[in-house]
Amino acid sequence: MDIKNKSLAKHYEWKGKIEVISRAKIESKEDLSIAYTPGVAEPCKEIQKNYDLSFELTRRGNLVAVITDGTAVLGLGDIGPEAGMPVMEGKCALFKEFADIDAFPICLRTKDIDEIVRTIYLISGSFGGINLEDISAPRCFEIERRLKEICDIPVFHDDQHGTAIVVGAALINALKLVKKDIKKVKVVINGAGSAGIAIAQHLINLGLSDIIMVDRFGIICEGMEELNPAQKEISKVTNKARKKGNLEDAIKDADVFIGVSAPDVLSKDMIKSMAAESIVFALANPVPEIMPDLAKEAGARIVGTGRSDFPNQINNVLAFPGIFRGALDCRAKTINEEMKVAATYAISSLVTDEELNEEYIIPNALDKRVSKAVAEAVIKAAYETNVARI
Amino acid sequence: MDIKNKSLAKHYEWKGKIEVISRAKIESKEDLSIAYTPGVAEPCKEIQKNYDLSFELTRRGNLVAVITDGTAVLGLGDIGPEAGMPVMEGKCALFKEFADIDAFPICLRTKDIDEIVRTIYLISGSFGGINLEDISAPRCFEIERRLKEICDIPVFHDDQHGTAIVVGAALINALKLVKKDIKKVKVVINGAGSAGIAIAQHLINLGLSDIIMVDRFGIICEGMEELNPAQKEISKVTNKARKKGNLEDAIKDADVFIGVSAPDVLSKDMIKSMAAESIVFALANPVPEIMPDLAKEAGARIVGTGRSDFPNQINNVLAFPGIFRGALDCRAKTINEEMKVAATYAISSLVTDEELNEEYIIPNALDKRVSKAVAEAVIKAAYETNVARI
Repeated sequence: MDIKNKSLAKHYEWKGKIEVISRAKIESKEDLSIAYTPGVAEPCKEIQKNYDLSFELTRRGNLVAVITDGTAVLGLGDIGPEAGMPVMEGKCALFKEFADIDAFPICLRTKDIDEIVRTIYLISGSFGGINLEDISAPRCFEIERRLKEICDIPVFHDDQHGTAIVVGAALINALKLVKKDIKKVKVVINGAGSAGIAIAQHLINLGLSDIIMVDRFGIICEGMEELNPAQKEISKVTNKARKKGNLEDAIKDADVFIGVSAPDVLSKDMIKSMAAESIVFALANPVPEIMPDLAKEAGARIVGTGRSDFPNQINNVLAFPGIFRGALDCRAKTINEEMKVAATYAISSLVTDEELNEEYIIPNALDKRVSKAVAEAVIKAAYETNVARI
Repeated sequence: MDIKNKSLAKHYEWKGKIEVISRAKIESKEDLSIAYTPGVAEPCKEIQKNYDLSFELTRRGNLVAVITDGTAVLGLGDIGPEAGMPVMEGKCALFKEFADIDAFPICLRTKDIDEIVRTIYLISGSFGGINLEDISAPRCFEIERRLKEICDIPVFHDDQHGTAIVVGAALINALKLVKKDIKKVKVVINGAGSAGIAIAQHLINLGLSDIIMVDRFGIICEGMEELNPAQKEISKVTNKARKKGNLEDAIKDADVFIGVSAPDVLSKDMIKSMAAESIVFALANPVPEIMPDLAKEAGARIVGTGRSDFPNQINNVLAFPGIFRGALDCRAKTINEEMKVAATYAISSLVTDEELNEEYIIPNALDKRVSKAVAEAVIKAAYETNVARI
């Protein structure tokens, strides 16, 4: 059986990849009166007196909601809320496996931004953090921004920031290998959706300054009419030379190509036009912008993809479990840029100089050391930026 | 340590009475590609093609949301959404212990009826059933009614119907013991909130016709100005003699008193004024309308309370786990009156004629046979009324 059929068969067998269990034994009348009435009135009254105790006396302190509206699920697009749930459950399973976080999947039966924001806010008292997932761009930017303003718990759109953090970590190590200065390299990002824009913003936070973004309609340049609000914002801090044209024009002499776009859009000729020792992250999934063997043939020194069957898998699972583990453990009120930068360096530094090579620029997706290292770095950054609450 | 302190200590130790775990093993790259990308696209596509598969391929088929707005938590009143969560988690633990149902607690940060209805609808695609909990009357009636109209999964306000079902079961057996005909007895219900009104409605469905309801302002009589919409409805089918007055007036010659009201509001003299072989269910918790020993002294033949430290505990846990087990197993689109009646008889019939006595009119709250018997009866009734979908 291939992976597709195996996965479907396993999903029928699992009948759900998550399960809610009871931590309280209820076998006697006394058990019942302690876990439920009348004893349960006591923790209720304690929380009523001191809201912060909701994180101690209920599961909230270890609980993240994984929320989607089903509009941008994997590469499948807008498949609807219920159809997106296998992905959400998978994410929840990863949270548990990699960071011992209780994560619960929720799908929303609306695409209206106001309703999504309000609904998530209204249920946010049940959780310690909100992981937004597979919400289409540019709606996802406004939804996240508004939720961050009104929620008292961390809100994190993983398709944006998880991807950006892991790309950043891979890039730091790749640049170390080719001995290029992060401040001077020229980067092209193909795909100005949620991941692309977040990657650009994050790379700027990491010290890069020469970034050109390309979308379906060509190079993104300040003042273009086609831009959505998020692209308009990013156009102000990228493509400073106001270059125009398409991907072919953008990629000439670039040191780094980062694709979060579509299958097979990067040609060997384009790679040949890049600077020497080029780095190609072709992250479209499951079919990348160019297959790694072709990229190598065209002269790319380092190639990364989103796939587990090639070296250098750039996978969000390296980021989100540790990010939330850290945020929950110090009860951070938000996940800020400093915490994301710290997470990036925590991931990249797990590859030692001795280990670093073309086929190993980033830890393995299953490396259990990662979430712990990320959590520690995130907590440190949270304290330094005064967003930790315990 | 008393129960209060024991409960608080245990809640600090538990750090949440529920936990979300992973049912999928993720130890290898292949595991990852089956539970998550790229394999997970397959169950997503299947659900997109056939919505019903959302109950098979995700946890939805075994998952109930326990939802509150924190406005009527236990006897504590409006303590706020987060403070209500220990009760919701307790309920979820009971769902798991008694019926192997995954239940997840959610609190809503709004008291607005429209917002509550809309929010619950918007997240309802994540669940197989909705258990409403501790929402104040009369808001709870409208919220439940509107949700039942728009949701394609069962919606059940346990404070109403769970209580009514268990009271009904206890009353059937108590009447058997005193050899009174259910169609002829005279019942007084004190407290016309969510539980009281649901009890009245359910007793009518069980064949009772002579019911008088009493609230703080006195006997409920059709046409009174003080009535909220739900009380107005119930006034049309109760107190047919249009009696006026207070509890003292109502209870004279009554066969049955059912209190869902406040501590110590029932006097010995009132019980003395009841018919011979009277039945007193004093369900205010933790302090009942009258203590059982006093009720007995005043001549009550059978006394039930909500407490586990007296005989005849009338506890919702006898109903809701089996109700939802049954509804989920036949994928009922609603929980209708026939299913509630069936649940009532399933509970009462677990006490055999040989076992039945003044101190044992209802199964023990911890009796694990109950949920199975209730589920079977509920499924049968669901098929008979054409609301089962599998």
